[in-house]
Amino acid sequence: MPHCVPEMVAEVQDGSSSAPDFVYDLCHSRTSANALHSDEHVDFWIEERLARPRLHIIPTPLERLCRWRIDPISGNIRHDSGRFFTVTGVKVRHRTQTAELEWDQPMIDQPEVGILGIIAKKIDGILHFCLQAKEEPGNVNSVQLSPSVQATYSNYTRVHGGSAPPFVNFFLNPPPEKVIFSKLQTEDGGRFLYKSNRNMIVLVDENELPVLPEGFIWLTLRQIARLLLRDNLIHATTRSILSCLVFPLRESEDYRMLRSLPEIIQWLDDQKAFNHLFVKREGLNTLQEWEMDRDGYFSHREGRFFRVIGINVTSAGREVSSWSQPIVETPEKGVIGLLMRVIAGERYFLMQAKPDVGNRSIIQLGPTVQFTPGNYIGNRRLAKPFLFDDFMGSGRFPVISAGFQSEEGARFFREEHLHTVLMLPEGTELLLPPEFRWLNEAQLHFFLHLGESVNSCARSVLSCLL
Amino acid sequence: MPHCVPEMVAEVQDGSSSAPDFVYDLCHSRTSANALHSDEHVDFWIEERLARPRLHIIPTPLERLCRWRIDPISGNIRHDSGRFFTVTGVKVRHRTQTAELEWDQPMIDQPEVGILGIIAKKIDGILHFCLQAKEEPGNVNSVQLSPSVQATYSNYTRVHGGSAPPFVNFFLNPPPEKVIFSKLQTEDGGRFLYKSNRNMIVLVDENELPVLPEGFIWLTLRQIARLLLRDNLIHATTRSILSCLVFPLRESEDYRMLRSLPEIIQWLDDQKAFNHLFVKREGLNTLQEWEMDRDGYFSHREGRFFRVIGINVTSAGREVSSWSQPIVETPEKGVIGLLMRVIAGERYFLMQAKPDVGNRSIIQLGPTVQFTPGNYIGNRRLAKPFLFDDFMGSGRFPVISAGFQSEEGARFFREEHLHTVLMLPEGTELLLPPEFRWLNEAQLHFFLHLGESVNSCARSVLSCLL
Repeated sequence: MPHCVPEMVAEVQDGSSSAPDFVYDLCHSRTSANALHSDEHVDFWIEERLARPRLHIIPTPLERLCRWRIDPISGNIRHDSGRFFTVTGVKVRHRTQTAELEWDQPMIDQPEVGILGIIAKKIDGILHFCLQAKEEPGNVNSVQLSPSVQATYSNYTRVHGGSAPPFVNFFLNPPPEKVIFSKLQTEDGGRFLYKSNRNMIVLVDENELPVLPEGFIWLTLRQIARLLLRDNLIHATTRSILSCLVFPLRESEDYRMLRSLPEIIQWLDDQKAFNHLFVKREGLNTLQEWEMDRDGYFSHREGRFFRVIGINVTSAGREVSSWSQPIVETPEKGVIGLLMRVIAGERYFLMQAKPDVGNRSIIQLGPTVQFTPGNYIGNRRLAKPFLFDDFMGSGRFPVISAGFQSEEGARFFREEHLHTVLMLPEGTELLLPPEFRWLNEAQLHFFLHLGESVNSCARSVLSCLL
Repeated sequence: MPHCVPEMVAEVQDGSSSAPDFVYDLCHSRTSANALHSDEHVDFWIEERLARPRLHIIPTPLERLCRWRIDPISGNIRHDSGRFFTVTGVKVRHRTQTAELEWDQPMIDQPEVGILGIIAKKIDGILHFCLQAKEEPGNVNSVQLSPSVQATYSNYTRVHGGSAPPFVNFFLNPPPEKVIFSKLQTEDGGRFLYKSNRNMIVLVDENELPVLPEGFIWLTLRQIARLLLRDNLIHATTRSILSCLVFPLRESEDYRMLRSLPEIIQWLDDQKAFNHLFVKREGLNTLQEWEMDRDGYFSHREGRFFRVIGINVTSAGREVSSWSQPIVETPEKGVIGLLMRVIAGERYFLMQAKPDVGNRSIIQLGPTVQFTPGNYIGNRRLAKPFLFDDFMGSGRFPVISAGFQSEEGARFFREEHLHTVLMLPEGTELLLPPEFRWLNEAQLHFFLHLGESVNSCARSVLSCLL
């Protein structure tokens, strides 16, 4: 939120409705040097936890995973209990106005709607957010700062017994005036089939949660923004949630925004009408382009895209001290890039109408680029994405920010992507393919708050603008 | 559009932007007594065509349909060529906050995005719309007034050869300034699996189409509204398209509308988060609750809901003079009802957040009620819908409009539904279940124009307010 300069804060502070108050609180939390913990303490607290990894990981062939089985008929990989998730196959036909592409691939089939929740609280007048230093088997660096709560439907309804995750009650039926944000947002639609989680931020009273359990910490937005500059520290789901705070809306902008919305909605509908995506679940056994490889992992025959590996995990301090699971591995680092420009002091972002197999709405707003370079190099079936060379480091556009951020470590194994924001120099014009559009902050605010309209890669790179 | 009183027309006429001009054109077409054809001529023209049915229908067991086969493994019903549509099974699990229901059912699987287009033209300064008197095998009364163009993807891309449907070129790449409406809208998500068509209205210049082919006619909105009062004359897809014109938006309302949108969007997102709907394609053979009956039709074991029958069709004047097809039959008449109220001169409509198996977005805005009475009477598994008795004729609320309108006759066999609009008397308050909300005209305008957000039943009954 670099636009939250103090004058602007003063201006919105005059407003009488609650919305400007909230914008003020956000800007204050983003800019104030005050915080419950000093930055030095925060850094020390994180280093302490980073230095004590508790999970030990051993890669294991899929057929030897304890309590997981490969279905003899379909080849799908599922847990004995039927819980958690299944790795299934899908066959896909994607028809555009100019081309038709067919392929098959494994997908993670986990049709539960979970809760990803961050608790917010004013401490000494400044909004703080409760994050958790949490280790997941696929994390790059032991712990990452996860949301206050990550709960699957089974977790929070406790259908399988066990204790509810701490804090989950704050998110089950919060009073509307305490809800800062609450929207279904999709997970990575390239590898999750129809998976949405509810991204939530809920405010608690100042006298609640006077002491947090071990592993949890209160941070201001400024402190979180500072930690976002470090590689692979802020968890993917935390970034997904925080993206809703990147473009706070001032009342005076509302009307102007509305006038431009129909044109953007029409463009998205045009793109939906031009992209026909037929997806059908099929057993992993029936996939033509994938196979069980010599390591006992499920891989693409040409070694592209990703593979499903098995891991055995032993833990020093979890309720379950060891478990096995399949996990998706993408060894090559990808690129998630956003091109921005400034016109008359207003920021615009080049967004792509991005079709995804696993997103029910088919088309969502994606970042300018999201690609894994190796999938395109020497692959005649796939054309290089628009601005590929620029996001591979052509040097044509100045770099505003760049750093590595990783995918969540419960389903993805040490997967990281370069998150880059580039600036289009003033006076430069780009000839845009029809699936690209410049969106301003208010328009992005609208779609982030509409829900299930901005894809997970876009939310991830947008969060870096915090 | 009963609110288009002349004073209001005069008021919006002063606006300088194009939107008020268009609102003026709509209101003018809705209110002016002038038209290319007199009402008497229109009535005569329709009677002539109603009196000359060209299709002859013979119900036939599914296994004896020419060029259709029942897949020996899955039991699915498909055309030899793989074209048109397939009848497949789905297994469904629907979990709400309070209940969980599982069932299976046949669905029409036709994943092509078609075009439903109406051509509009100003004739002597008044907007006219081009409709077609067209017969379909499932129509109740031989011809109905269909859109100017109904084209499947195969039709308009001519992948299978043959001639393109007349007028389809007007809809393929229309210049944006000629597009009055163009949005994907879902078909009946209770029986179509993931089927959306593009609902379009495109303006042509006054000198274009000086003469229409036999069977087509130019009508003003007033004339169409008058014909909507007749039972089963305006085709389902025509009603679907026209619903976008029911609530024209005046500029002055925009800002007020925007302020109320976040709350409605939040309610819809809440309902989405509370309704977990898992749908999986399965062969018809695997369905537990359905079977091939003694007539050779695919029916529910208790005779509920609908059945898939076969028909042989012979035609006096089509390009194909005879064909066979499966078609969905629902003998009992259903009820599609809308409750409205007026507060301070503004109309509000009681909309339902309606989950549908075949709608990708799971939840859309449905009408107040949509039900087939027989499915509830004596059925312990299903609770009666809210306001069931009122829409069954309790007499508690005054009737604003009531008439029979039918489903499209290419997939549904002589299926009609009572379309009722009731008025909540002033001063009456209803205690609403959480899945119901009062929406005003501007809010409905927003969701109709967002696309894939207002379900087909709602669009059908809303069109009756034209």
